[in-house]
Amino acid sequence: MSAADAAGPGLGPALTSARRDPTFEVEAIDEHGDRTRVSIAGEHPLTLYVDKRELVTLMTLGQAPEALALGFLRNQRLVEGIDQIAAVHVDWEVDAVAVTTRAGGADYSARTATRTVTTGCGQGSVFGGLMEEIEAIRLPQDARLSRRGLHALLDAVRRRETVYKQAGAVHGCALARCRDDGSEASAEVLYYVEDVGRHNAVDAIAGHMWLDRVDGADKVFYTTGRLTSEMVIKCAQMGVPFLVSRSGLTEMGYRIARQVGLTMIGRAANSRFLLFTGEARFDR
Amino acid sequence: MSAADAAGPGLGPALTSARRDPTFEVEAIDEHGDRTRVSIAGEHPLTLYVDKRELVTLMTLGQAPEALALGFLRNQRLVEGIDQIAAVHVDWEVDAVAVTTRAGGADYSARTATRTVTTGCGQGSVFGGLMEEIEAIRLPQDARLSRRGLHALLDAVRRRETVYKQAGAVHGCALARCRDDGSEASAEVLYYVEDVGRHNAVDAIAGHMWLDRVDGADKVFYTTGRLTSEMVIKCAQMGVPFLVSRSGLTEMGYRIARQVGLTMIGRAANSRFLLFTGEARFDR
Repeated sequence: MSAADAAGPGLGPALTSARRDPTFEVEAIDEHGDRTRVSIAGEHPLTLYVDKRELVTLMTLGQAPEALALGFLRNQRLVEGIDQIAAVHVDWEVDAVAVTTRAGGADYSARTATRTVTTGCGQGSVFGGLMEEIEAIRLPQDARLSRRGLHALLDAVRRRETVYKQAGAVHGCALARCRDDGSEASAEVLYYVEDVGRHNAVDAIAGHMWLDRVDGADKVFYTTGRLTSEMVIKCAQMGVPFLVSRSGLTEMGYRIARQVGLTMIGRAANSRFLLFTGEARFDR
Repeated sequence: MSAADAAGPGLGPALTSARRDPTFEVEAIDEHGDRTRVSIAGEHPLTLYVDKRELVTLMTLGQAPEALALGFLRNQRLVEGIDQIAAVHVDWEVDAVAVTTRAGGADYSARTATRTVTTGCGQGSVFGGLMEEIEAIRLPQDARLSRRGLHALLDAVRRRETVYKQAGAVHGCALARCRDDGSEASAEVLYYVEDVGRHNAVDAIAGHMWLDRVDGADKVFYTTGRLTSEMVIKCAQMGVPFLVSRSGLTEMGYRIARQVGLTMIGRAANSRFLLFTGEARFDR
């Protein structure tokens, strides 16, 4: 499902659909001294302008630049709702994305004055006040994820054709709906975004969710990246009660997950996983 | 070699030596439903003040906070030389590092106005103008690295006791001197820093090099992380002509490496590697 498909005219912002080629071929010399062709991942600067003011330059694979720009504004709490956005225009000729708000004249310079440079594998800045915000977050208690639903998700992700398999050097994130009716379990991947920075991939999914007005309360967020503080904060901000990663976690990621009541599962691959927090939502 | 050892009184800045415990133990439930104890990596906010002005908050493992603060200022080109630094004081009671300049009254607000949020696995911000700077960089042409010297380095890194082996979720960086006299090759790892963000690990090594007045021209930089644009830029800025990674690379990392004349080797582990750029310095 692409953002452009779901948001019809008059319902959502006007959008470009300016995806880049994900991989490039270069020549390398291997350990035997032989020349070989290798696929590598793209990386492009994308400068975000909001109402013609320059805000930030993101380095991205460029698979979902419109959603990335929107998700960045959402996750940084710079724009409150998708209804405030009139247009998102990506122009790779000048490596820029121009976001226009309906009110116009947005100026975030005061809100971006205090910076937190985080452990993100990729875009990694949290603007001031983000840490305070998590105090207010409470995730829905009634959502459920079963062990079989988790396995279905890991299987769906594993079978996917990805830029990572072709070129490495990128992280993938997914938003999924996992079901288990007692006799059969399934996982539907609603979005899958890869980017050179894992935080870009998260932000792009947040942007897709905004555009398609998808609620996170009954969904599962999957990432190939590590569960650091910022990853946990973003998942909680998006209202998703389940966070699953192939990788490990940090102590601050663990602490914040407990604080906000997130069900967090790490080192999840094939049939293995470790459930770290929020076990009440998990059906073993 | 620690920074505190090498920089005696009167020669370098006054330094604390405030390392944090690298790992924490938490309880998790595994795929069999069994409770198990798991080591996870620390992650701590560290707010950097320069002459009492707040500059940035870094999320760090806390293994070399003084060197990290200095390397951040160095790699962001906010301070020109280590001689300008009078003191670096880390206080984990308040999660802060206070840097005092000899001149006093440093104010970087103008220079930090334009932000680049990069693909760093970890701290990932490049302040304005960084991209322009690479135009001026030319790395020494006479440095050599042999295939056997590279293998000695990979072997030394592999045998190291690391936080990664114990807890995962961190990246490691090393600065090394590789030698090959024709009959025997060796690699001396001068610094090895791990951090939750790979860019923190790079910056900490830049800080150590400053403190110990170590020149990069005959050294090899090793990272477990991906070779994105910012990683290549930082290596070039530190004047190190060889960049070796266990991971892959991006197209922009590749392009910048060619532009600055860096010898860049990716996917290097055990006896395998791919030489991507700067083959003239490499003895096969």
